[in-house]
Amino acid sequence: MERTLDRIPPKSADLSEWYQAVCYRAELVSQAPVRGCLVLRPYGYGLWERLQAELDRRFKETGHENAYFPLLIPESLLTKEAEHVEGFAPEVAWVTEGGSEKLAERLAIRPTSEVIIGVMYAEWIQSYRDLPVLINQWANVMRWEKRTRPFLRTAEFLWQEGHTAHESEQEAAEEVARMLEVYREVAEDVCGVPVYKGEKSASERFAGANHTFSIEALMPDGRALQSATSHELGQNFARAYDITYAAEDQTEQYCWTTSWGMSWRMLGALIMTHGDDRGLRIPPRMAPTEVVIVPIPRGDASALYTKARELYGACKDAGLRVKLDDRPGQSPGYKFNEWDMRGVPVRLEIGNRDLDAGVATLVRRDKAVKEDGQKQQVPLDEVVAFIPTVLEQIQHNLFAQAKTFLTGRTVATLDRDEFYRMCTERAGMIDIPWCGLASCEAAVKDTTGATTRNIQPGPPRAQICVACGEPARYQTYFAQSY
Amino acid sequence: MERTLDRIPPKSADLSEWYQAVCYRAELVSQAPVRGCLVLRPYGYGLWERLQAELDRRFKETGHENAYFPLLIPESLLTKEAEHVEGFAPEVAWVTEGGSEKLAERLAIRPTSEVIIGVMYAEWIQSYRDLPVLINQWANVMRWEKRTRPFLRTAEFLWQEGHTAHESEQEAAEEVARMLEVYREVAEDVCGVPVYKGEKSASERFAGANHTFSIEALMPDGRALQSATSHELGQNFARAYDITYAAEDQTEQYCWTTSWGMSWRMLGALIMTHGDDRGLRIPPRMAPTEVVIVPIPRGDASALYTKARELYGACKDAGLRVKLDDRPGQSPGYKFNEWDMRGVPVRLEIGNRDLDAGVATLVRRDKAVKEDGQKQQVPLDEVVAFIPTVLEQIQHNLFAQAKTFLTGRTVATLDRDEFYRMCTERAGMIDIPWCGLASCEAAVKDTTGATTRNIQPGPPRAQICVACGEPARYQTYFAQSY
Repeated sequence: MERTLDRIPPKSADLSEWYQAVCYRAELVSQAPVRGCLVLRPYGYGLWERLQAELDRRFKETGHENAYFPLLIPESLLTKEAEHVEGFAPEVAWVTEGGSEKLAERLAIRPTSEVIIGVMYAEWIQSYRDLPVLINQWANVMRWEKRTRPFLRTAEFLWQEGHTAHESEQEAAEEVARMLEVYREVAEDVCGVPVYKGEKSASERFAGANHTFSIEALMPDGRALQSATSHELGQNFARAYDITYAAEDQTEQYCWTTSWGMSWRMLGALIMTHGDDRGLRIPPRMAPTEVVIVPIPRGDASALYTKARELYGACKDAGLRVKLDDRPGQSPGYKFNEWDMRGVPVRLEIGNRDLDAGVATLVRRDKAVKEDGQKQQVPLDEVVAFIPTVLEQIQHNLFAQAKTFLTGRTVATLDRDEFYRMCTERAGMIDIPWCGLASCEAAVKDTTGATTRNIQPGPPRAQICVACGEPARYQTYFAQSY
Repeated sequence: MERTLDRIPPKSADLSEWYQAVCYRAELVSQAPVRGCLVLRPYGYGLWERLQAELDRRFKETGHENAYFPLLIPESLLTKEAEHVEGFAPEVAWVTEGGSEKLAERLAIRPTSEVIIGVMYAEWIQSYRDLPVLINQWANVMRWEKRTRPFLRTAEFLWQEGHTAHESEQEAAEEVARMLEVYREVAEDVCGVPVYKGEKSASERFAGANHTFSIEALMPDGRALQSATSHELGQNFARAYDITYAAEDQTEQYCWTTSWGMSWRMLGALIMTHGDDRGLRIPPRMAPTEVVIVPIPRGDASALYTKARELYGACKDAGLRVKLDDRPGQSPGYKFNEWDMRGVPVRLEIGNRDLDAGVATLVRRDKAVKEDGQKQQVPLDEVVAFIPTVLEQIQHNLFAQAKTFLTGRTVATLDRDEFYRMCTERAGMIDIPWCGLASCEAAVKDTTGATTRNIQPGPPRAQICVACGEPARYQTYFAQSY
């Protein structure tokens, strides 16, 4: 009995339907029997492990260490930073019973950890010599949600959250910029997702921050996806949680703190950016499996399987993440479709005739079927050495395709009507001189659904806000967003 | 202003006080402002990362993949396996409110994940061709506790839990044995903690299992510490959660499932086993820092610091986990004490005079002060190549010391009075022929506090149970335990 792979709807017809379908069919996730929650299946977790490894290495290279803080935060602590609690309280899940006992105080499942980490920093930090404190946490967090969209919106999600404390505002600002650049690098150079770096407007800021910066990607439906954020918390949390240090001049000072996070949401951006009607397309640096070898047996295939296993061993020895699909009872065609669905960048096909000719067929997942260069014959004794080059080409090609899309859909205008129309129609990243006023932002949002995504450095490119006619202060991207 | 390192009480005086003190002073953990919870500080998390890496590699080598399942489990699901819920219900923390809404059904924070994973396996597994399913999860879990003892007893803790499904009882039993052996290997060969493998008695079994196996270590106070468990769940969870598959003969069959876990408790075993009056002693394979270089400047030290940095770079290039402690304002003596406290296996001291002589002083943490071989002069141009050999020696020496202790404190007796006395006095692993009766076990526990730790394979070494006089069925270790 051969299995058939259920089809997914075309990506161009309805991105949202395609997205949900591909997430389930490629076995990235399953719906859980818990409202708003998701199961990350082994293939999805494989993507997450790749993202973790790439981030974690960069965090350590920039001097950070990992630590782990409690899941539960007493309500009385959570409420000390007023803006923060106001921002997060509506989304908190509360533990009220432990064992058979009703608790005296409700405990929040962390929606983020500034509070509990702030309390610890207050205890750990005594002197300027303890600074900076540069800590990252890998954790699950929870923000109560009724709707579920894989990776993009779930009650529980996996992320990392960096929390640092510094002597000066300047140092804190440098940290925030450094980590934003790490995020840009991982998004663009690893996940192949081009982004814009910039500052969020006041109304889009993290609850309790002085400045929030983000990287923003653009999805194929013209909606932006905030992919990571980095916050200057000023001395707000330091004051609320009493994070002070004795300065060199013996005075008692408040620390300047930061926080920054990227979640499995980044995987959602990757999937939507690169996928096609045949399923996922994973950039090689993120691929749990870079190469799959599929033998195409006909008649006596023992020599073929021996060669395939030899090839598999050679790939493994070369440090490639490789799988050999020698499952009996499944046709090569079924296997091709399945690995296409999972977005494995390179497929090596090898049949009896190839064996005689001393070649394998190398198939690139980044190319369309029958597109020039999709398939090529490669001599068996050269193929292992050739693969890394091909993987690099695929990595760059996927990024280039996405970059072309982002550039083409980044649209500037100085005309108010056109601006409003573009916002409504999800034209892309709509790039205008903007006044910076919350009232203007709210008006655009109410009418079109679009919000400010982020503010570019430097002055606006015209003097008048395109949205409202007040004086412009910044050059800013607007878009509808996830 | 130089800091002074607070002293810890001697290990031999009171193991429990020493243990708590060393965990806090070595900055492994901090107490959290949440009852029963712990903060794992960067150095403690460094140990956890080493343990994770060693386990994760072995899980993958044995064919397992990682995945992630929801934190919250609806009460109605939890109660389907009767023994399981009875075992865990008293320890569950419950979420009853989400956002501003009271939930219709209580949600348990996972005390372990058999239930939620069982539900997913029922959905994923259709045919014998889907088997075996071999999944591991890295996660936080919660079991409501009032008392906190770092790593050994906390409400929330970090662990891994493997969950597998198989076609036959035989295959499941092999999996359980395979993972128990992985645990033994990591405990002994990585953490340097010798253990006994064996089966738990019925009363000490995991709630819902047919057979539970454990590795048991012996702490310096004569109490055993269960360091990992591996469970044959039979078809109990398969029946409760309907995990079935179509067999090759087209019949519908229940799967045979297993689960197995090791937590940060293993770090507690490591700390108690190896530490001494000066603090931690970390076996090199587990050490976040294997080598610390401490310059001892006198007068003009610029050449000294240059050399120290050169040495640091050479160690790093050689793949060693190395730190250079060139902090100004702290004396070498302070630094020595601090790195001793943290248990770094090798210290390299280098002073101006050493520089002239072309040597460094290598100090081994596994040796007592002034013990033969604690310090040796090593030529600077040989030291980097020499360190791996020394690290291996330290690894083996720490294990050998612990093994000598375990062997010496594994005591067999055929005399009932002596057995009871040894149980009461925490003589160690008390090795007796045992009847296997729950009533006998309960009587020993009530009188002495000791319980069965695990049962060795093979027949008992005498015909009569030493504890009660009934016919003996097994050779079994008794001990008081953590």
